[in-house]
Amino acid sequence: MRTPTTPYLRVDLDRLRRNVRRAADHAKTNRFALRPHAKTHKTPEIARLQLASGAVGLTVATLGEAEVFLRHGCYDFFIAYPVHVDERAAERLRDLAERARVAIGIDSVDGAARAGRLLAPYGVEVVVEVDSGQHRTGCQPEQAGQVALAATRAGLTVRGVFSFPGHGYSPEGAVAAAADEARALATARDAVRAAGLEVEVVSGGSTPTFAHADLGVVTELRPGVYVFGDAQQWELGAARPEDIALTCRATVVSHAGGRVVLDSGAKAIGADRAPYNTGHGRLLERPDARIVLLSEHHAVVDVGDGPLPPVGSRLDVVPNHCCTAVNLTDELWVEEHGLLRPWEVAARGRNG
Amino acid sequence: MRTPTTPYLRVDLDRLRRNVRRAADHAKTNRFALRPHAKTHKTPEIARLQLASGAVGLTVATLGEAEVFLRHGCYDFFIAYPVHVDERAAERLRDLAERARVAIGIDSVDGAARAGRLLAPYGVEVVVEVDSGQHRTGCQPEQAGQVALAATRAGLTVRGVFSFPGHGYSPEGAVAAAADEARALATARDAVRAAGLEVEVVSGGSTPTFAHADLGVVTELRPGVYVFGDAQQWELGAARPEDIALTCRATVVSHAGGRVVLDSGAKAIGADRAPYNTGHGRLLERPDARIVLLSEHHAVVDVGDGPLPPVGSRLDVVPNHCCTAVNLTDELWVEEHGLLRPWEVAARGRNG
Repeated sequence: MRTPTTPYLRVDLDRLRRNVRRAADHAKTNRFALRPHAKTHKTPEIARLQLASGAVGLTVATLGEAEVFLRHGCYDFFIAYPVHVDERAAERLRDLAERARVAIGIDSVDGAARAGRLLAPYGVEVVVEVDSGQHRTGCQPEQAGQVALAATRAGLTVRGVFSFPGHGYSPEGAVAAAADEARALATARDAVRAAGLEVEVVSGGSTPTFAHADLGVVTELRPGVYVFGDAQQWELGAARPEDIALTCRATVVSHAGGRVVLDSGAKAIGADRAPYNTGHGRLLERPDARIVLLSEHHAVVDVGDGPLPPVGSRLDVVPNHCCTAVNLTDELWVEEHGLLRPWEVAARGRNG
Repeated sequence: MRTPTTPYLRVDLDRLRRNVRRAADHAKTNRFALRPHAKTHKTPEIARLQLASGAVGLTVATLGEAEVFLRHGCYDFFIAYPVHVDERAAERLRDLAERARVAIGIDSVDGAARAGRLLAPYGVEVVVEVDSGQHRTGCQPEQAGQVALAATRAGLTVRGVFSFPGHGYSPEGAVAAAADEARALATARDAVRAAGLEVEVVSGGSTPTFAHADLGVVTELRPGVYVFGDAQQWELGAARPEDIALTCRATVVSHAGGRVVLDSGAKAIGADRAPYNTGHGRLLERPDARIVLLSEHHAVVDVGDGPLPPVGSRLDVVPNHCCTAVNLTDELWVEEHGLLRPWEVAARGRNG
């Protein structure tokens, strides 16, 4: 039987199942649709768990992710991204739409017109992206009617409106960001209706804002990270350490300078570090420890008081950001009842 | 013929060859051995260019990288890392050493003794790592004699001493770090000799310090990044933009908020950001532009004055750190005379 060598990403299947179920129950109880973002895990087995628990379909970030999940038996995709629809993208979307329900994001009148020219015959729906405060992509909420109208006039079906409240990734910021998102989405929804169009879906994002979403406004939520949790969610208060289902199993390789050096470098856990992160990663069993220096194959850890874990011992590192950590590996090693088996990260690297 | 979709990593082959040749010429002229670090490219074709230009062998970071390059016809590896030698690692090193010349790093008396117990019969050499100022791994230079002696007593052959002057990754820091490294390596070399042992190799690291290395002390250098260059080297003054051989070809997907948003997110270019970096990445043809916000699939760019590049246009992004960017993709798209062909990043993800 194949076994992994450190550093490798390890999934606690009980915790993963619990995280999936908890979000699904919340959606069921509160009668909103859950469309989890599969960019977090990129793993067909996890998508199946989500769909089996009642998710209405998958959110993905790229055409390539949708193509991979289609090959693994998923049939409803929202590509929550302002896909630039050139001829090649149109062909790929046509192929997807022949076998699955597919929607893409649009965030401008020009983009809507272009998408319509190339996609109108294929049954690809569009969802208007609005900026709810992150200032990344998305039109202003008031413009959503014009964008939707341009799409309709270009022959496309508008499914509704969506946003990603990424500015909720800050301590104490999630509640306010969820409120911002509700306001933006309500404005956008009303603008689309004022343009004479139906709004089937009002879709919100994000794990930190998930518990705070205004369920009077949103009809669908697209959290991703909730399946695993990570040091960002831990430090934001959106995940408890006992819920974190993904760690990097690492080996202590050196005690140089009286510190612990692990083999879980940036090529294993990712280099993401948000302003609110207290280090480059955490240790699951030592809440006081911090990764204070991270290079490609070294994580230097300040473990706080007490003796150093011996060279050769194994520790579980919590990456700052699970989505980018998972995208570094072709396999997740899934632990259940003490046994490890590999799950393929089939959509790894599918950026386009 | 297969063609890539954005975002994808693109190599300018003329520039790559020029970078390889320039370092090789510098080594030849100054009579030191070049053992380039293959963790940067993880690509057999590039290793072959380096070896064909006179490199004495490859530096790698992991056993897995050595195994991949061995399958692709490379036969001399220095694993510049304090490999934790357990029984499994020992088996893998034995298999490598049956077909290649192999050395590993050691940085403690205990590590030397353990490596000797498991590796003594296999002809794996060791090189003593010393800390020259980065404070990551490596023993103190004065301890190198004890570590080397412990290795010898455990039945291993000590090849010499090495260091990585990673603290030279700061503006104006490279000259001082090269001098620190020379002092540390000279002290370590003398300590090993004082213990009665030969020192065949005194090996230094790093692209920023490459031009400043004290060639009266070092006999071997292990730069990695020099083959490509990246925004870090550009901002450190160690690479000129016209020498940068690796970019991420990206598409403008949105003008939301009056800014350019590219599809080259952190999953394509990496999330590395050193304190001296002026942004999350640069644009090759627009030195004033900066990536001001980076998420997994979005790079928001402040392009400075002038009109915005149109939605749908293509731009070349210079990642902050080429090593981690390359580790995100299974293929590099290599351009020569206007034609693109894929090179396999065969050692991608080989962290263990």
